[in-house]
Amino acid sequence: MAGNTFGTLFKVTTWGESHGPAVGAVIDGCPPKICLTETFIQEMMDRRKPGQTKTGTARREADQARILSGVFEDQTTGTSICLLIENKDARSDAYKPYADLYRPGHGDFTYQAKYGIRDWRGGGRASARETAARVAAGAVAAALLNQHNIRVMAYTRALGGIECRDFDPQAIGQNLFCAPDMKAAAKMEKRVDEVKKAGDSLGGIVEIRVSGVLAGLGEPVFDKLDADLAKALMSIGAVKGVEIGAGFAAAAMTGSAHNDPITPQGFLSNNAGGILAGISSGQDLVMRAAVKPIASIAMEQNTVDQTGSPRQISVKGRHDISAIPRVNVVCEAMVCLVLADHLLRQKILDHSASSSNSTRG
Amino acid sequence: MAGNTFGTLFKVTTWGESHGPAVGAVIDGCPPKICLTETFIQEMMDRRKPGQTKTGTARREADQARILSGVFEDQTTGTSICLLIENKDARSDAYKPYADLYRPGHGDFTYQAKYGIRDWRGGGRASARETAARVAAGAVAAALLNQHNIRVMAYTRALGGIECRDFDPQAIGQNLFCAPDMKAAAKMEKRVDEVKKAGDSLGGIVEIRVSGVLAGLGEPVFDKLDADLAKALMSIGAVKGVEIGAGFAAAAMTGSAHNDPITPQGFLSNNAGGILAGISSGQDLVMRAAVKPIASIAMEQNTVDQTGSPRQISVKGRHDISAIPRVNVVCEAMVCLVLADHLLRQKILDHSASSSNSTRG
Amino acid sequence: MAGNTFGTLFKVTTWGESHGPAVGAVIDGCPPKICLTETFIQEMMDRRKPGQTKTGTARREADQARILSGVFEDQTTGTSICLLIENKDARSDAYKPYADLYRPGHGDFTYQAKYGIRDWRGGGRASARETAARVAAGAVAAALLNQHNIRVMAYTRALGGIECRDFDPQAIGQNLFCAPDMKAAAKMEKRVDEVKKAGDSLGGIVEIRVSGVLAGLGEPVFDKLDADLAKALMSIGAVKGVEIGAGFAAAAMTGSAHNDPITPQGFLSNNAGGILAGISSGQDLVMRAAVKPIASIAMEQNTVDQTGSPRQISVKGRHDISAIPRVNVVCEAMVCLVLADHLLRQKILDHSASSSNSTRG
Amino acid sequence: MAGNTFGTLFKVTTWGESHGPAVGAVIDGCPPKICLTETFIQEMMDRRKPGQTKTGTARREADQARILSGVFEDQTTGTSICLLIENKDARSDAYKPYADLYRPGHGDFTYQAKYGIRDWRGGGRASARETAARVAAGAVAAALLNQHNIRVMAYTRALGGIECRDFDPQAIGQNLFCAPDMKAAAKMEKRVDEVKKAGDSLGGIVEIRVSGVLAGLGEPVFDKLDADLAKALMSIGAVKGVEIGAGFAAAAMTGSAHNDPITPQGFLSNNAGGILAGISSGQDLVMRAAVKPIASIAMEQNTVDQTGSPRQISVKGRHDISAIPRVNVVCEAMVCLVLADHLLRQKILDHSASSSNSTRG
Repeated sequence: MAGNTFGTLFKVTTWGESHGPAVGAVIDGCPPKICLTETFIQEMMDRRKPGQTKTGTARREADQARILSGVFEDQTTGTSICLLIENKDARSDAYKPYADLYRPGHGDFTYQAKYGIRDWRGGGRASARETAARVAAGAVAAALLNQHNIRVMAYTRALGGIECRDFDPQAIGQNLFCAPDMKAAAKMEKRVDEVKKAGDSLGGIVEIRVSGVLAGLGEPVFDKLDADLAKALMSIGAVKGVEIGAGFAAAAMTGSAHNDPITPQGFLSNNAGGILAGISSGQDLVMRAAVKPIASIAMEQNTVDQTGSPRQISVKGRHDISAIPRVNVVCEAMVCLVLADHLLRQKILDHSASSSNSTRG
Repeated sequence: MAGNTFGTLFKVTTWGESHGPAVGAVIDGCPPKICLTETFIQEMMDRRKPGQTKTGTARREADQARILSGVFEDQTTGTSICLLIENKDARSDAYKPYADLYRPGHGDFTYQAKYGIRDWRGGGRASARETAARVAAGAVAAALLNQHNIRVMAYTRALGGIECRDFDPQAIGQNLFCAPDMKAAAKMEKRVDEVKKAGDSLGGIVEIRVSGVLAGLGEPVFDKLDADLAKALMSIGAVKGVEIGAGFAAAAMTGSAHNDPITPQGFLSNNAGGILAGISSGQDLVMRAAVKPIASIAMEQNTVDQTGSPRQISVKGRHDISAIPRVNVVCEAMVCLVLADHLLRQKILDHSASSSNSTRG
Repeated sequence: MAGNTFGTLFKVTTWGESHGPAVGAVIDGCPPKICLTETFIQEMMDRRKPGQTKTGTARREADQARILSGVFEDQTTGTSICLLIENKDARSDAYKPYADLYRPGHGDFTYQAKYGIRDWRGGGRASARETAARVAAGAVAAALLNQHNIRVMAYTRALGGIECRDFDPQAIGQNLFCAPDMKAAAKMEKRVDEVKKAGDSLGGIVEIRVSGVLAGLGEPVFDKLDADLAKALMSIGAVKGVEIGAGFAAAAMTGSAHNDPITPQGFLSNNAGGILAGISSGQDLVMRAAVKPIASIAMEQNTVDQTGSPRQISVKGRHDISAIPRVNVVCEAMVCLVLADHLLRQKILDHSASSSNSTRG
Repeated sequence: MAGNTFGTLFKVTTWGESHGPAVGAVIDGCPPKICLTETFIQEMMDRRKPGQTKTGTARREADQARILSGVFEDQTTGTSICLLIENKDARSDAYKPYADLYRPGHGDFTYQAKYGIRDWRGGGRASARETAARVAAGAVAAALLNQHNIRVMAYTRALGGIECRDFDPQAIGQNLFCAPDMKAAAKMEKRVDEVKKAGDSLGGIVEIRVSGVLAGLGEPVFDKLDADLAKALMSIGAVKGVEIGAGFAAAAMTGSAHNDPITPQGFLSNNAGGILAGISSGQDLVMRAAVKPIASIAMEQNTVDQTGSPRQISVKGRHDISAIPRVNVVCEAMVCLVLADHLLRQKILDHSASSSNSTRG
């Protein structure tokens, strides 16, 4: 069973290779009568677009998402929505030298092992270009969430080992790294310059925060909200760790410190990250994703070719130094997809728990 | 869409409440002709059984799993397998005082918000008793993995802030905490005694290691092997963070340090944790789960009742001090379920990538 | 991907073999706060129970369905519901002579071909005993449908070539064959007696009628209401044909005769069987299932054994002469499962099309 | 849960409206290394193409299917395959008069009831234009089946009440109606001319025959091969009945007449239509679909508008007189999708039942 579909009710299937004619997504399950335009989708697409940040690739794509179905007079109709993004600035020749090589840190070897064939042009399906389709689909999810006043926001928590100490939401839009801490951002800039010069790359941490979530989202025992969020974030190529609320820090805490006390005015803390027993509590959701450094580096590395012979490789081309901050909007998109799905799943249970929700939350 | 089913081809649905007549699982998709006996399942069940560790509850359950279908003359037949574990030592009266209270750190409030009704006896469906069914099902998955020489092993990496520095596989069976480091285990014992006296509880970190995995498991782009493992582990009630390979540490590394170089003899390191682009590389899988402290503590905490009025609560009863080490086998079971599922998923692609696998891996 | 699960939101997984310890079903997705008791389920079970009709087997089973989970104080809680029916009167010895034979018209050969192993006792998983679990699950669906005033009724339309000409709902409960036509029922009785004497068996036609269905159920383009009903009915072992509304007769009609004209008072006819473009129109649903004769007959037949050698077989034992009328309640159960599922699926679309529905329908 | 996806392992999601920019399909789960070209797909598309038969619409579409992903150097890569067919000859103005009317026999009323909004241009999503995407996807399935020497063939069994008495495979390609009986075809032509003059339309029966099917396909108890075929065919808008093998005729047969005797040389008859207990037996699959007359007719009919007021309607435009024979290839495509899916599902069970299959079958 192939794995290009995400979600159960708000179900997204993506398709497309880095250097094929296009990438795209089909959404089956978007409710009718949601206002949806190409302009709205484009705003989210533009935040992921290559060629505009200090850490990003020089590849330039208009990344224009077209709506091919499921929308009539700017409203969704309840039928499946196809979104298409053409690939325009693909230069396959740059990849020819690696056609028979397994680039370290990439999926070249594992795709070959799995499928016995691979489209080596630009990484094929394993390329981060695939995330363009995620963002387009995520924008449709965001349109649905907007109707319920749920807001998802991703920002840089750390880059190249430099952690943000401060949280100033205003700062996020004012530095190249989308960090909520201008001082940290300044240090990040220095670090990026160093590493770029060395032909190396950097990892970091993305933090995602969701406000306006009603209590009750999440489906125990397996499709818990945190379980689905973990899967969603970990399905992004660069992500190697996910934590909710206190996360790994919780492992060293006592129960009395970790439990969030409840009062008539609400919870007194949020170590749970807004999720209890896999169901949203009405508090803000807070989670973090660990992003590994970009695998394509100019420095020489050991590898083998398809025959198993030893080779040296230096990956040139138009690569990012770090997936951050372009990956932030991808994280945001994935969280939107999870929440849209769980919002619809909760709709099936129409007992109207609204009274108990409204007093808290 | 309710969430009591896990997996796509090796599909497990669990059911049962803490104080109902039984808990159990139905497995749909176990291939035929796998050797399976109740004795084999019981060995795995016994590692989770309450009443036998220093950190565990005093509740005593035989936890005997019966096979009700799908097995004929000790072999699976390809039809659905029902496993049933009776609840025998449930004492619902102990929970009466909390019937209208929301215990902090528990799902009481969120279950009520979601469903508008809840079985408060022993935590109902949100009880860790539910994991008995996971372990029974995980044992069936393990029987399948055994046929392919895939071995899953979970152990304690940290407890109450005390991390194992050493990795001695022999040690795991020789201390009460299933830690691969006898010195650390000794410190853990002291820590547990302190905290028990204080009426408090502890968290920790479980590490899971899988050997014998063939290259090619995992289904990009969403059902990547690491994505499904993250979901599987995060779906365990106590888990609040998951990382693969270098995990969160990768966020502070450079690409040249993080990439695992490839040689004709195999990979030179394993920062990827055995997974590249969401597909197993043939190296050992390595992952960690952050386990929060047990929410039920004897210390007084602030909460509210169902009417929203402030209350004090001290959760007495037969509770664990830490989910560790009993949760280890639950992590193991979940990893077995993921691997069994992906093993079957890979079977569909019969191009026989065996040659490329066998040289490496 | 094994196929023991039916439905998408109201999702039922059945398990159990004819001569194993029990058969049963797990329902994942029943909404909370539905009134549900074992007594209610038993009423539906009793209509399928062996040993009480003229066409039926002499095997006697109490067929008592126990609720093992998901219900608290006679209300569903939203968690998974396990139903268990013990097998008590299984006599495996009667099947020993057929252990290495492929009974004509049965799944013996195909199960062996598919799985490479089979539980030959009483037909194993392929036994009609499996439908006991369907009826138990169907009763839970019926409980949900009752809340929405949707009523499903199955009756015998034909038996052994004798068709009902009349439709008198009162008659259904007043003859051994559940036929809505007393004259036809009398002829059926004669036909059954003849065939019984000859050691042969009979087929027939079941008609199912559903009242109270709201407009809007069904999910184009593949999960149309009629498509899912067709699958549901055809998944019953004995069923070899399904038609909706005018069905096969429509093939010989003109458009002007077949189209159901619409007036402010509603549709003027119901050739569509209550479904237009795969979505319920608010009219009664009407459908029929063709039931093949029971394959187990006392008359001698040609077959082969597992080595492929020719053999003669005469299937003795406690077999029905016809699946009708016991299969009627199984059809009813399957239709209930489909409708419960689509009712929940339609809940996700909460635009409240009630106004347009209420004027018609 | 929306219903635009078909299949479990060979999973097809279609999208697109009659008068939108395009229709298409995404296939997730096609195995790698299947030879696939646009030319191959086009051959199957051309058999459905409007504007070339006596019963067909005058709308002219090139109906050119483009492959946007999942294929590299004429081979599938195992990643998702997007197929796109542009709409070029759509004339929405012709539908303006019906924008607020519910055409009898169409989904106008039910779509409005379900979604609260509908794209009225050309029937929107409910248009038979949607089946272009099914045929394109079916062609990919056919490419997979070809590898296994499985051949699916659909032909006209009846049109306008005229049944084929003969079965001459050569004849199918030699008459306008794809009937295997030249005499019947001649009568059909006369009948079509009459009805065309009257401004009316006709139904018919499609028969589908599959050769080369191995024993073992089908997944009891719910996803039986016949159950999935029934759903597949019934999901086609015009189909109102489905039968397998003897089908409805079986209802009037005795067991001794209906059972197919088994000999060392194979089965002696095929009343079962090649399926026993939901699993293919290795015999040819035989099934029929009842097709209702085209709902769009020039004759005046009673209906209502969206406000519920009575109206008269005469549907002009470029409509078919009968869905037959254009629907034949759609039936063929759906059967291909079912078989491709079950072929992959059977691959998971690798016990190699080939020996028992090969002796029979």
